[in-house]
Amino acid sequence: MPYKEEVVIMQHILSAEQFSPDQLAGLFAQADGFRETDQAIASRRDVLQTHTGRIMLSMFYEPSTRTRFSFEIAATKLGIGVVGTENAAEFSSAAKGETIEDTVKVFNEYGVDALSMRTKEEGHADRAAAVSKIAVINGGDGKGEHPTQAVLDLYTIKEQLGRLDGLNVVMGGDLAHGRTVRSLAKMLAKYPGNKISFVSTPELQISEDIKLHLAEHDTDFAETTDMYEALRGADVVYWTRLQLERHRTDKDISVGQEHFVIDATALEVLPSTAIILHPLPRNKEISASTDSDPRAKYFRQAGNGLYVRMALLDQVMKNRT
Amino acid sequence: MPYKEEVVIMQHILSAEQFSPDQLAGLFAQADGFRETDQAIASRRDVLQTHTGRIMLSMFYEPSTRTRFSFEIAATKLGIGVVGTENAAEFSSAAKGETIEDTVKVFNEYGVDALSMRTKEEGHADRAAAVSKIAVINGGDGKGEHPTQAVLDLYTIKEQLGRLDGLNVVMGGDLAHGRTVRSLAKMLAKYPGNKISFVSTPELQISEDIKLHLAEHDTDFAETTDMYEALRGADVVYWTRLQLERHRTDKDISVGQEHFVIDATALEVLPSTAIILHPLPRNKEISASTDSDPRAKYFRQAGNGLYVRMALLDQVMKNRT
Amino acid sequence: MPYKEEVVIMQHILSAEQFSPDQLAGLFAQADGFRETDQAIASRRDVLQTHTGRIMLSMFYEPSTRTRFSFEIAATKLGIGVVGTENAAEFSSAAKGETIEDTVKVFNEYGVDALSMRTKEEGHADRAAAVSKIAVINGGDGKGEHPTQAVLDLYTIKEQLGRLDGLNVVMGGDLAHGRTVRSLAKMLAKYPGNKISFVSTPELQISEDIKLHLAEHDTDFAETTDMYEALRGADVVYWTRLQLERHRTDKDISVGQEHFVIDATALEVLPSTAIILHPLPRNKEISASTDSDPRAKYFRQAGNGLYVRMALLDQVMKNRT
Repeated sequence: MPYKEEVVIMQHILSAEQFSPDQLAGLFAQADGFRETDQAIASRRDVLQTHTGRIMLSMFYEPSTRTRFSFEIAATKLGIGVVGTENAAEFSSAAKGETIEDTVKVFNEYGVDALSMRTKEEGHADRAAAVSKIAVINGGDGKGEHPTQAVLDLYTIKEQLGRLDGLNVVMGGDLAHGRTVRSLAKMLAKYPGNKISFVSTPELQISEDIKLHLAEHDTDFAETTDMYEALRGADVVYWTRLQLERHRTDKDISVGQEHFVIDATALEVLPSTAIILHPLPRNKEISASTDSDPRAKYFRQAGNGLYVRMALLDQVMKNRT
Repeated sequence: MPYKEEVVIMQHILSAEQFSPDQLAGLFAQADGFRETDQAIASRRDVLQTHTGRIMLSMFYEPSTRTRFSFEIAATKLGIGVVGTENAAEFSSAAKGETIEDTVKVFNEYGVDALSMRTKEEGHADRAAAVSKIAVINGGDGKGEHPTQAVLDLYTIKEQLGRLDGLNVVMGGDLAHGRTVRSLAKMLAKYPGNKISFVSTPELQISEDIKLHLAEHDTDFAETTDMYEALRGADVVYWTRLQLERHRTDKDISVGQEHFVIDATALEVLPSTAIILHPLPRNKEISASTDSDPRAKYFRQAGNGLYVRMALLDQVMKNRT
Repeated sequence: MPYKEEVVIMQHILSAEQFSPDQLAGLFAQADGFRETDQAIASRRDVLQTHTGRIMLSMFYEPSTRTRFSFEIAATKLGIGVVGTENAAEFSSAAKGETIEDTVKVFNEYGVDALSMRTKEEGHADRAAAVSKIAVINGGDGKGEHPTQAVLDLYTIKEQLGRLDGLNVVMGGDLAHGRTVRSLAKMLAKYPGNKISFVSTPELQISEDIKLHLAEHDTDFAETTDMYEALRGADVVYWTRLQLERHRTDKDISVGQEHFVIDATALEVLPSTAIILHPLPRNKEISASTDSDPRAKYFRQAGNGLYVRMALLDQVMKNRT
């Protein structure tokens, strides 16, 4: 277990960047194992014994299906009891003016082992971890981090292509606001030889801090509005949706995005060995007809989220006394 | 097990009419068994082993106490883990514009075994099933089907009266909009010798398609506004509430319905061997004083929903590899 | 087990006053035991066997983190399955006009063992219990009772100071509306030699019925606006927040309350052996800097809620056949 020595970092899961390539390799091996054991009911029952007696709290201050469900399923499969709220903003003490710190301090007294949470404001997961002995797992903090999504994105690339280096990665959509593209770009910079093409309208291109980060880590990148040219040499296509719910502007930011749709025409220029990923949910930026193409891996990617989260939960639980 | 040969139909539970009388007889025997084992804590613990390691997702896009609770209790009693949302309309990817198909495709990747769902729109359960390998269980799709309610209604009649044929069934209330009366009427047409009396105001009488269906299946029926006359020969009284939340009209549809109340006067003309059912919740169409009458079986009927759903869940789980 | 003889009272948990000092002593011993066994995963797994096969329904018609979470965690730790809603007002049959009695009668048919509930209206828990064979546990009924909070408050005093008699207890904040201070005052009157100082503005002082109750039970009390004088001789400081969400007035009831803050100055006059309690959540009436003072026990107190609720749940479950 090459990640054993750094396991102390796993007390909390706050940022994708906290994971070294070695730690990720260890987590990926575990996720493989959990996917394997999930295929038969007998081994599922064995896995149920892993963390019997542990409890995870699930506190979601913002809507989520995928993240909350996959965390709660992951916990349930590991034998971990789950108690939670899907509407913490309205149904928790937050509505009575309690600070996130007080909320977390109380949970630390409740004999539970982990707190998976999605918050509206950036930095809330860090603030929670600062006062918490139980594991805080960041399931997305506003415009901030969403580390488990980044880990499952990397896992899917590794699973499908066998490597995380020397890749031609094309990222498209709302790059300016997409938490997942920002995070994945930084993670890819940890591996040598990757090249990233950012495809979007000028208004929604990737921000300067990411470009600076890539430059500092010797990772090539290019910005373009020519989707077809970018797709032609791609190993990985990472497509995203316009997160309209995060915009508070009268301007129609979707102008121009209608050109960036993965459809039959786009599939024609894409290499046969490439894979297409998307953090989901999607709107129209990937046509439904693409689903039947063997290169479409976004539903597989979503399912990988379950096994990656099982691995992450297993790690933070092992770290408990 | 006479229903074994048709078990493939049980991959999904979408419509009451998918069940043949033989399949229903098998399910009813199972429900009897689950009610029996539920009486002692020792046998409850045995039942808990039945489907340990399985997981059911519970997705409710519309309010529900009875259906959601009884499904989740049924799953819990069978050892099935439950993860879900009671407010899918707001707290799922639906709010981000995801189609029901995409949502269900993702759940198919999460290592779960069944999806019980209530949706706002008719046909959503069918659309879900069309893309799903995991069992889809329709817990009500708008004005469409509510198959588990129909099965538990039939089960209660069989349990209380010993047969499902040759019955005089009186149905009253909002017949035009009631999903349960429509479904029960069609199911009763599968058994010989039943006669149905529909009691309501002309505006809220049973619709033409049901009458046509009954005629095609040689099932006698009559429409009347004379409740007392109908009650006089009844074996089964199936009473329903005005579903005001499903109406978008300024017209007061309750006019005339105040005459159709099962109270002390109604009980006087009702045969002593008859039973009174209601899908609940009730408003004023059954007086509270009726509850203590031995013919009032609507709370028992609600409880039967638990055991019928245990049987149905057991069947779809057995169908899993 | 000195409380055994009175165990029949434990069919429901409706009011703090239903518990005699002997019963409380028994519950406290159990809570101690549950806290102890919660320290190691091996003994946690043993406790999980205690009530396997039992099910608790959790019906919350009003927001709650602490009470709902601690009840659901308590149940989970005892092996009791949990099914529930955090938003019963909107997502239950209440929205369709069902009475609390009908709702509870249906739950009594569902093969469950307890119903923990928080309601908006005073008296709803009593109405539920009146028609229920399964245990009804009042998790707060509007302005009425919140018995498990009162029991955990007493438990914390006993745990920290070793006794429940001969105490100088200072209660401050919104005494007129605080459910917890009213309840704790009445409970302290069951033990000899206690003296209570009520610190508040005249508008928010403790109500006449409580003063009458204390007088009838020979319990000394005083009302004052001089917080420092009261703190000087305190064994227990019980501080509370302005429950602004329960007020429907244009008058600013917070006027004057800014003088009643437990901060560094207040800590200076407080005896070194005193303890500071608060039902939480807090706003500004206890400064954050107080948290690090060894006399601050309010987070411990919250955690005690878990173990007290485990003891209470264990009792009502033992009472089941």
